[in-house]
Amino acid sequence: MKAERIIPVPFNRVSVDDLFWSPRIETNRKVTVPIGYEQCRNTGRLDAWKLDWKDGDPYRPHIFWDSDVAKWMEASSCSLYFHPDNKLKKNLNGVINLMEKAQQPDGYLNSYFTAVEPGNRWTNLRDRHELYCAGHLIEAAVTHFVTTGDDKFINIIKRYADCIDSVFGNGAGQKRGYPGHEELELALVKLFRATGENRYIELAAFFLNQRGTRPHYYDLESASREEDPAENYEYWQAHLPVREQTEAVGHAVRAMYLYSGMADVAAETDDEELAEACRILWRNVTGKRMYITGGVGSTERGESFTADYDLPNETAYAETCAAIGLVFWAHRMLHIDMKPNAKYADTMERSLYNCVLSGVSLDGTRFFYTNPLEVRPGHAMAQSGLENNYRYFRQEWFNCSCCPTNIMRILSSFGQYIYSSSNDSIYVHLYAGSTVKVVMEGVRVNIRQKTEYPWKETVTLSVEPDEPVEFSLSLRIPGWCENASLELNGKEIRQLQITSGYAHMRRLWREGDTLNLILPMPVQKIEAHPEVRGNCGKIAIMRGPIVYCLEEEDNTQSLNDIRLDSSAELKAEYDENLLGGCTKITGTANIRKGEVWTDHLYRPGIAETMPVEIKAIPYCLWNNRRPGGMLVWITENIPD
Amino acid sequence: MKAERIIPVPFNRVSVDDLFWSPRIETNRKVTVPIGYEQCRNTGRLDAWKLDWKDGDPYRPHIFWDSDVAKWMEASSCSLYFHPDNKLKKNLNGVINLMEKAQQPDGYLNSYFTAVEPGNRWTNLRDRHELYCAGHLIEAAVTHFVTTGDDKFINIIKRYADCIDSVFGNGAGQKRGYPGHEELELALVKLFRATGENRYIELAAFFLNQRGTRPHYYDLESASREEDPAENYEYWQAHLPVREQTEAVGHAVRAMYLYSGMADVAAETDDEELAEACRILWRNVTGKRMYITGGVGSTERGESFTADYDLPNETAYAETCAAIGLVFWAHRMLHIDMKPNAKYADTMERSLYNCVLSGVSLDGTRFFYTNPLEVRPGHAMAQSGLENNYRYFRQEWFNCSCCPTNIMRILSSFGQYIYSSSNDSIYVHLYAGSTVKVVMEGVRVNIRQKTEYPWKETVTLSVEPDEPVEFSLSLRIPGWCENASLELNGKEIRQLQITSGYAHMRRLWREGDTLNLILPMPVQKIEAHPEVRGNCGKIAIMRGPIVYCLEEEDNTQSLNDIRLDSSAELKAEYDENLLGGCTKITGTANIRKGEVWTDHLYRPGIAETMPVEIKAIPYCLWNNRRPGGMLVWITENIPD
Repeated sequence: MKAERIIPVPFNRVSVDDLFWSPRIETNRKVTVPIGYEQCRNTGRLDAWKLDWKDGDPYRPHIFWDSDVAKWMEASSCSLYFHPDNKLKKNLNGVINLMEKAQQPDGYLNSYFTAVEPGNRWTNLRDRHELYCAGHLIEAAVTHFVTTGDDKFINIIKRYADCIDSVFGNGAGQKRGYPGHEELELALVKLFRATGENRYIELAAFFLNQRGTRPHYYDLESASREEDPAENYEYWQAHLPVREQTEAVGHAVRAMYLYSGMADVAAETDDEELAEACRILWRNVTGKRMYITGGVGSTERGESFTADYDLPNETAYAETCAAIGLVFWAHRMLHIDMKPNAKYADTMERSLYNCVLSGVSLDGTRFFYTNPLEVRPGHAMAQSGLENNYRYFRQEWFNCSCCPTNIMRILSSFGQYIYSSSNDSIYVHLYAGSTVKVVMEGVRVNIRQKTEYPWKETVTLSVEPDEPVEFSLSLRIPGWCENASLELNGKEIRQLQITSGYAHMRRLWREGDTLNLILPMPVQKIEAHPEVRGNCGKIAIMRGPIVYCLEEEDNTQSLNDIRLDSSAELKAEYDENLLGGCTKITGTANIRKGEVWTDHLYRPGIAETMPVEIKAIPYCLWNNRRPGGMLVWITENIPD
Repeated sequence: MKAERIIPVPFNRVSVDDLFWSPRIETNRKVTVPIGYEQCRNTGRLDAWKLDWKDGDPYRPHIFWDSDVAKWMEASSCSLYFHPDNKLKKNLNGVINLMEKAQQPDGYLNSYFTAVEPGNRWTNLRDRHELYCAGHLIEAAVTHFVTTGDDKFINIIKRYADCIDSVFGNGAGQKRGYPGHEELELALVKLFRATGENRYIELAAFFLNQRGTRPHYYDLESASREEDPAENYEYWQAHLPVREQTEAVGHAVRAMYLYSGMADVAAETDDEELAEACRILWRNVTGKRMYITGGVGSTERGESFTADYDLPNETAYAETCAAIGLVFWAHRMLHIDMKPNAKYADTMERSLYNCVLSGVSLDGTRFFYTNPLEVRPGHAMAQSGLENNYRYFRQEWFNCSCCPTNIMRILSSFGQYIYSSSNDSIYVHLYAGSTVKVVMEGVRVNIRQKTEYPWKETVTLSVEPDEPVEFSLSLRIPGWCENASLELNGKEIRQLQITSGYAHMRRLWREGDTLNLILPMPVQKIEAHPEVRGNCGKIAIMRGPIVYCLEEEDNTQSLNDIRLDSSAELKAEYDENLLGGCTKITGTANIRKGEVWTDHLYRPGIAETMPVEIKAIPYCLWNNRRPGGMLVWITENIPD
């Protein structure tokens, strides 16, 4: 018998009630998702579906608009599941009705190509986001179906998927192309899972296997358009067949979506070769090309990966969507092997608690597209010529507004990242107050998680089976944690059985069984690999999964001049009045005295310093007060 | 009686025979200047003067080509003065003949506007370099006249200057405009000095005084072209009248040329208000906006100044031409007051010995346009997508090739920066082996300077008057130097009279009088102002005027990971086999051990380090071996 794979517990089986996440999820539901609708409406993204745009009208539809609407629909569907809301439902159904009317006789469904360039369908897969938009529509429809049971939207979308399936493939007269912006691959796996229709996963595998093969489809395609081919296809991750790719290259969001689709297909089809390609790429990203915040993409140029260990802090791109994409990929890597490996959950947690959450303001109204690790606004403004630069000031919306709607959907579906299960085992990947409903060996089991993580060290899990049942419960021991301990019904478990980063407990679970997991959270000074040139001689502060930063608001303007002794004591303290409640880190560092600096820039000799109190806040909460300087990597001094 | 101003001793009265400079000047003459001719010829810059270009021909003339040719002519004229060379003379005269034929009946002389856009003369002063090219032609012609005595070229150019003088001015029907790229102002002062014609300095003053006035000429001009005006005029230093400007803004080369012209006009016309504007701008540049190498311009965006203390090392623009422009300006600031102040010579020296000289390879064949203070080639390539990136690999030429020809002219006229004089005093600004011929109180005096500066600490000056004569000899005590001492005829002068940074000796000088100036040159660890964020926690190494850097070639690839103790001993040693002979700096630093870094990027705890020998070379000599990493600002550690 084939062993049963562990799969995620979907978000609708997990109700979240958490000190850290719930306020953000609530703000997302009450503020951000409604903003998404207003923005889509006000910018013409909804009206585009009326297909009546003509030259001269304002708001010319754009090739990627459908994806914004779809991501908003996905977020709305999730939101409606736990919180019925007639207005939201009406808005959502209104969009579905527009799409129904916009669908072409052959199933085709794209507002831009139908209304603006009807003759140019499928003529530029490389650059024009047609299949990318299709992917987001599919994701939205699957979520809508799962959360509402209503099959109207998914039926529309299945017709579109079937249309795509008829156009692309190895058959006679079919196109051998594949998405320039990956996304459809992972979406087709979702559609396969929701419908059980094999042709969808086969189409996903087709797109993956075609990618980067010779003769290059994008060469042929650009020749048909009488255009020069691209110099190379790294930007699109189409420079090599995906199984031969070993380094993360090109546009970071595309890369994350591609690798997510690869991991999905590898898991569903038991394709070990494809799984191994994913593992190699994973090691490259997390071992050489990822910011400490879980951000990826080191340059604005092409929103791209660059080279191993090239992780500049000030000019970091670290797009919010790319961090979200890394969460998607990490989540899928957890399910690529027969049993999860906690290293994937460590990275999922790193991105979620840091670079993802920094993408939206505490009040849910403004968004970061890029997430630098160091900012000095006056200098950034002078360098770029832009006031209220998007690098240090969250914006209300963007022309290319992928990040806000991605934030909406990940926050509204957060519960799905916490647990995975099979018939006789359940894994806890993340620590967040929640209740999960699963069935173990035919018995209904609720597990209730109570915690003030990531501020406090204790997680309490109550196991509530309908009747006593044997199964395995596996708790992730985070990679950042040393000396974790676990109590069962008040007694410490002496010999924790930890494999692949999870503590496993197999037993006959009874109503009232209670686990206390203690994850000591000392303040940690973190150093980066010596090849990360910008972090040499510097340390970052972490506590638990939280990366800290210094903000000008709490410290001096000259954040860079703060020198922290390697031996300095740092104190963690929860402050309920700070930024919605969070644990701050304080301590004493040194800074140069200013008196000797009059009108000169350079002087010989060694600085005289004086002590300075510093206060660090979670990176994910920066820029929620006045715009000002921010710094993650702090100059370190090693006294003898 | 009006006090006599100190003025520069022109280059043709100074013969240079110096360990440091002569090889560079010789290479410039023998290799670089001939390359300049070949490049101007091969790229169409010379043929442009035939005025026969027509649509479809290769090498469409460009609006700034005339300036490249003119700067080459200036360099050639200087070169010919000390080294007659028939081939060079023939080439130079050939160009003059072309220009003679190209001159229009009204004196107008511009290859581009005559051949390519004959109808568009003077319609876009802001952007189209027309008056800038005129300035360079004037500089070339003045130099040609001074060095050859031949007035053919200067007569051509005077006709052009007169043409410009008739077009621009406050008179009826005259244009109120001024150069978008400054240069003509300082050139007109040179023409005034060479000819004694007041109208030239009046025109220079007119251009300066018009600049930035309202209604804005560039607004009117763009309206005439039916174009939108610029958002503001900082890029062109035309945002305010020049007397109201207090911060260096916009394009750095333009700024340097403007301020040079302002200083010239201030000195020649005793315009104290204009002089004060220069002093204020000087304090802003050297106190807040200058790299330690004497480079200026902190961003590639507009090749511009940015904000106070914004001096990033990796992305420094620090254009070679801007450093040369800073030398021009500093040289003029030395002569803006009745007596020189050595602070201007300090900066002149800083730029000359560091950022100017780094602009050309030791063999004279390749050029840097930008001069960053930190480079990691693999990362720079990945960030830019450019192989053999111009930021870490000198190029043979550029489409916009202002820097190579600027290098040619400054090296071929280097002697002019060493001395200044009046009727009864002589100032020594720079220390370089040379002989200067001056007349003091009617008596011919030769002063012979012998030194191995900047490698050795002693400068010997022999005073050789035709007959005993009283005058004042003033020697600059460099700002970097503590404990300078001076011997006259073997006896130490106990009480050096130092004012404004010069040691002054007034006496009856006799044949055979000899001065020994000793300038102690310990290796100095230099720190930068705390607001220079990228240099916090770092030190630069200097010895005398020379800024040092670490090159990958001599050290490790992870230059950034080198930590130098503030107390570390550094040793200076002359190495005749290193890069044409130079003093290297060596010592012991620390670097992290690599073993613990396997496949992870971040780890808690403090690095274990091990000692590493470091070797620093002069910044001006970097990138003369294999391309590799380079670093000026080194991580500093302060042990207890």
